[in-house]
Amino acid sequence: MQHILQVQGMTCGHCERAVVHAVRQVDPEALVTVDLPTGKVTVESDHARDPLAAAITEEGYTVAA
Amino acid sequence: MQHILQVQGMTCGHCERAVVHAVRQVDPEALVTVDLPTGKVTVESDHARDPLAAAITEEGYTVAA
Repeated sequence: MQHILQVQGMTCGHCERAVVHAVRQVDPEALVTVDLPTGKVTVESDHARDPLAAAITEEGYTVAA
Repeated sequence: MQHILQVQGMTCGHCERAVVHAVRQVDPEALVTVDLPTGKVTVESDHARDPLAAAITEEGYTVAA
């Protein structure tokens, strides 16, 4: 399924990679696309949204929606 | 000796660590202090300034002064 997460606090390519890495810690098979200017993170995964969002939050970012 | 480098483009803690890491690739003994809001990077090192600045530039940041 596809999850759209609005992530706040990503400022650079390192942040982008940190978010992708956080998602992949939960689901190594996830397909993750980050749009840095808008903070839109698209995750194609069989996993539920909440643990994916929690992993991003633990990395220090805010998942707004 | 102490080098003061004005670095542009650091936006987050990952950037800070990337710059510290770049300096330490040149001089593992360097003492590096980064002030993220101002971009001021202070390096205490026996190495010359140019290779330290070059390492930061190679990491994708601009050393302005």
